[in-house]
Amino acid sequence: MNPLRILSLLAAGALLSLPAQAGAARPAAPLTTTAVAKPAGIQRIDPTFWWVGMKNPKLQLLVHGPGIGSSTVALSYPGVTLDGLQKLENPNYLIVNLTIAPSAKPGKVALEFRGTKKLTYQYELRARSTEAGRVQGITSADFVYLLMPDRFANGDPKNDNIKGMRAPAVARDSMYSRHGGDLKGIENHFDYLKQLGVTAIWPTPIVENDEPKASYHGYALTDFYNVDRRYGTNEEYVQFVRNAHKSGLKVIHDVVLNHMGTSGYLVQDAPARDWFHQWPTFTRSNFRDAAFNDPYVSQYDRKQFGEGWFDKHMADLNQSNPLVSTYIIQNFLWWVENTGLDGYRVDTYSYSDRKFLMDWGNAILEEYPNIGLFGETWVQGTAQQAYFAQNIFPMVDGFKANLPGVTDFQLQYAINEALTRDAGWTEGINKLYYTLQADWMYQNPQRNVLFLDNHDLSRFYSVIGEDFAKYKMGLAWLLTCRGIPQLYYGTEVLMKNYSNPDGKVREDFPGGFPGDKKNLFTTRTGPEAEAFDYVSRLANYRKTHPVLQSGKLMQFIPDQGVYTYFRYNDQGETVMVMMNSGKDEKTVDMARFAERLSGFNSGVEITSGAAVADLKSVRIPGRMAWVVELRK
Amino acid sequence: MNPLRILSLLAAGALLSLPAQAGAARPAAPLTTTAVAKPAGIQRIDPTFWWVGMKNPKLQLLVHGPGIGSSTVALSYPGVTLDGLQKLENPNYLIVNLTIAPSAKPGKVALEFRGTKKLTYQYELRARSTEAGRVQGITSADFVYLLMPDRFANGDPKNDNIKGMRAPAVARDSMYSRHGGDLKGIENHFDYLKQLGVTAIWPTPIVENDEPKASYHGYALTDFYNVDRRYGTNEEYVQFVRNAHKSGLKVIHDVVLNHMGTSGYLVQDAPARDWFHQWPTFTRSNFRDAAFNDPYVSQYDRKQFGEGWFDKHMADLNQSNPLVSTYIIQNFLWWVENTGLDGYRVDTYSYSDRKFLMDWGNAILEEYPNIGLFGETWVQGTAQQAYFAQNIFPMVDGFKANLPGVTDFQLQYAINEALTRDAGWTEGINKLYYTLQADWMYQNPQRNVLFLDNHDLSRFYSVIGEDFAKYKMGLAWLLTCRGIPQLYYGTEVLMKNYSNPDGKVREDFPGGFPGDKKNLFTTRTGPEAEAFDYVSRLANYRKTHPVLQSGKLMQFIPDQGVYTYFRYNDQGETVMVMMNSGKDEKTVDMARFAERLSGFNSGVEITSGAAVADLKSVRIPGRMAWVVELRK
Repeated sequence: MNPLRILSLLAAGALLSLPAQAGAARPAAPLTTTAVAKPAGIQRIDPTFWWVGMKNPKLQLLVHGPGIGSSTVALSYPGVTLDGLQKLENPNYLIVNLTIAPSAKPGKVALEFRGTKKLTYQYELRARSTEAGRVQGITSADFVYLLMPDRFANGDPKNDNIKGMRAPAVARDSMYSRHGGDLKGIENHFDYLKQLGVTAIWPTPIVENDEPKASYHGYALTDFYNVDRRYGTNEEYVQFVRNAHKSGLKVIHDVVLNHMGTSGYLVQDAPARDWFHQWPTFTRSNFRDAAFNDPYVSQYDRKQFGEGWFDKHMADLNQSNPLVSTYIIQNFLWWVENTGLDGYRVDTYSYSDRKFLMDWGNAILEEYPNIGLFGETWVQGTAQQAYFAQNIFPMVDGFKANLPGVTDFQLQYAINEALTRDAGWTEGINKLYYTLQADWMYQNPQRNVLFLDNHDLSRFYSVIGEDFAKYKMGLAWLLTCRGIPQLYYGTEVLMKNYSNPDGKVREDFPGGFPGDKKNLFTTRTGPEAEAFDYVSRLANYRKTHPVLQSGKLMQFIPDQGVYTYFRYNDQGETVMVMMNSGKDEKTVDMARFAERLSGFNSGVEITSGAAVADLKSVRIPGRMAWVVELRK
Repeated sequence: MNPLRILSLLAAGALLSLPAQAGAARPAAPLTTTAVAKPAGIQRIDPTFWWVGMKNPKLQLLVHGPGIGSSTVALSYPGVTLDGLQKLENPNYLIVNLTIAPSAKPGKVALEFRGTKKLTYQYELRARSTEAGRVQGITSADFVYLLMPDRFANGDPKNDNIKGMRAPAVARDSMYSRHGGDLKGIENHFDYLKQLGVTAIWPTPIVENDEPKASYHGYALTDFYNVDRRYGTNEEYVQFVRNAHKSGLKVIHDVVLNHMGTSGYLVQDAPARDWFHQWPTFTRSNFRDAAFNDPYVSQYDRKQFGEGWFDKHMADLNQSNPLVSTYIIQNFLWWVENTGLDGYRVDTYSYSDRKFLMDWGNAILEEYPNIGLFGETWVQGTAQQAYFAQNIFPMVDGFKANLPGVTDFQLQYAINEALTRDAGWTEGINKLYYTLQADWMYQNPQRNVLFLDNHDLSRFYSVIGEDFAKYKMGLAWLLTCRGIPQLYYGTEVLMKNYSNPDGKVREDFPGGFPGDKKNLFTTRTGPEAEAFDYVSRLANYRKTHPVLQSGKLMQFIPDQGVYTYFRYNDQGETVMVMMNSGKDEKTVDMARFAERLSGFNSGVEITSGAAVADLKSVRIPGRMAWVVELRK
């Protein structure tokens, strides 16, 4: 395989923020594309293959090969039209624009490149899959399990160390090294997840991250079109999704819109300078999404937010370049069509170009209207969070979000405060009330993803001071509030630790790795067993009770630290959730809840099975959440 | 004067929350209406008079007199049509609906009431005033001085104690008694206010509050159509506004939409039960505006919010009754037309009926498009605050606000936090940045009223720990940020104290009352003099520099506790405000501000006169705000 040429402008320092020196000094990475046969002289074409019958008949091919930019192209294939070519700054690239008519049949399109020599590339057009169970979408009926594939379970030790990849060998004693987890490891524990009541798996990104350091998290992709081989092959991922579906589990594909790893071929041999945001010296984003829509923003702050790099090894993609925009959009369609995945979780959603975000959302939803789609919006305040979701606002400053859902950080702040701070007028448990109230800004808040913690945050059990009573309150809330509940792996067995300073919120799941002394997949005792059972009971109840999935919500203003809300539907199901955030027992006069209690005579607390005989007045102990199914 | 009859249903306890027993036991209040001659049998007609040539030709008269409800009415007046009569539950009332054609001439309309006996009432139609300087509106060019007329200055000791009014005599040693301040007292200090740089006076309500206790604050009106005689007569108030205008001062009229004092004649002899919200037993509002637009609200909470009483002696008006709605709307038009006042501040804005709020806003703005109009929105979060103002939201749940401005509590929270908490990612001074950023939700945030404190809050100087450096930072911010700055009386001379528990934030202005030993109107030394001069210098600079009134705002993300923003306009004026919220001096690289500094070579700090020679880098001491006029 030819070593990739470092674009001369890179070596000349024009792309100062790209690793020019490093690129020149070290051998470029071997390509990892294996999906198509490559004739000499053409390294690859992205998308690596495509389909007939897509709603959008246009297809933009990015052809990569030494000197390919000076070629002309010819093809003759019924239903496929060559719309034109576009040269790029880097002569090693050529854009080939095609139209694929609905009448086109699957097959190989012979693309004839004529330049210094003649090359033919057999570009594959596939038939769209008609397999059942593909692209199921993610809804509030789901219970999502977020895990880091490198840290969950190692099912195939053969792929732990891949020759030629940049990272050092697996080293489980370091939080920043690879630990060896993989797709097979997840698959081996589908039964565990099913037992827990999970319905959807969200692994952090599984695409190639061939970076020399800290690549285990997956958020610095180096190849848009290949699974990281330390997790498995592309074919194994397709099979992973298929097997998940067969097991009644959905798959959420985690992706980054905003940036990519600097070791990726698109950075190392950049198609053109304007494919990335360039800075005279390395400039980090200011991480202030507020600058996206601050009416008083300086261009300085806005540019640094959107065009500053997320980190040194994460090149910031310039999505205002239509070629880049199309490249990314096609990649998103490709993964869905190729695997049948059920939903996307979009990292660092707010950091991207505003027009691109709208185009991207439209394109995905037009092709897959039912896909699950939620973005990371680690922002301040519900208005700002809603601004990045489908909301009730008009277009503001050129932006109108079309993202169906968001990771609901505001409610994460709120539930944490509810369990760690005394109730005040707006504080403590009252913050939960106020945060839910602000849902009037969303088109459909049921699409938001609820969570207690995730891979970037301190673990819930640590935040609440390892207080098991509070733990149950948090989990009861997570599985009964509106939206799509998401659990971070290990929370069900009381995994703990803080996000700073040591990254230990990403520890291995005990039992997932060869030689583990403790195996919490199979053997749980004491509090770990109690925690698992509590989550499992709630999640499985939720799974069989539509009222907790899609029921309406009614909340009552918290009174003396006791917060009461109801989920109810037109089928006569009603579940009452009462949380006493205070230390002391409280007597609650239920007359206030008459409009929801009417017609019911008693209830059963579903985690304990305890009967609630009297719906007129109850005494709820301190630090307690009751999930009560009402009965006639 | 006939004692008012207590509606039989009141005595029967149907209006349980009205003071039935008290009403029966004590003599009713003497009427205070003096504006029109009252024939025997008709106590009064509201509005007490009206005008020809109003945009809305309709007029609803509420006629009050023993047994008047069974009367018919006749009139013969060119251009005035009797549209119809409406009986009310209480036979002592009659609604008379008129249309006043544009052609009608001013004069007295003889209304002939024919019932058990015949009565004629000469109802006055006036010509609209063409006097210059009326209804100037309140804009961001203004600097508003909020004062409590009972506590500011006593200019007319003759009106301190009014025979027949319910409150005990003036007692300056009690925070809850009357102290004797009045309109004349304010007028006597117009010069003082001018010297301070004030352009508009906002007295807490001056309408009659003939309540037996704690009536000094003015928020429990007992007569919609009369000035409290302890402040002056209606005629004196008209003259007060005229004199203010002559002195270059505007007047803001403070009013309550939501409730009225239970001693008022409309409560004591209620037109009908449905003029007020009735409860089986006294029920206080839950004070949670969140219930107004919570998508998950219970009817229980929503009703208690909107229909619960603000306090025991504050009857909650039922504005969903169209007669009540019209009564209130007409009263608002009446005060403007009668006095030429410049703006309204609306108390407890969010507590009212949603349709009424929209109708009320439309009616006021249709008649007086330029009037200043801002409501009290003591709510949580900018979205909720913007929800009650003219905003970018569509109608939500039947409500679309049309209020031009609000009292900006969110920025009050923010400036207080900025000066009392260390800077964090979102905390301290950064909260100011984030709160301004959220302005994208308003149609025009320049109409919002900025303040450091008010009559309901702990005084600013106490909140910041009597730290004079912080004091200057707060004032510099108040007078340079976007919006309409409002100062609470006495803040300019370092008055202090906390809102709880003793109400001492409403102490008398030293020097306003006969016998005061200290007179801060005339004699200020030390920190009081320094404070006054600081405010005065800033306010008078602002008064003569449009850039601080209406200039655009650009803010930069705070860096290490230093927050920098600019006011600038197309006329080449630019003012830079830099606030260092930390304790320590900071060096600020100004390159980041290039887009605002471009074209300028130096600056002058306008409160100190200090030159800023270098616009490349500055060292700003800890706890410092600079207001720098940039120069070419």
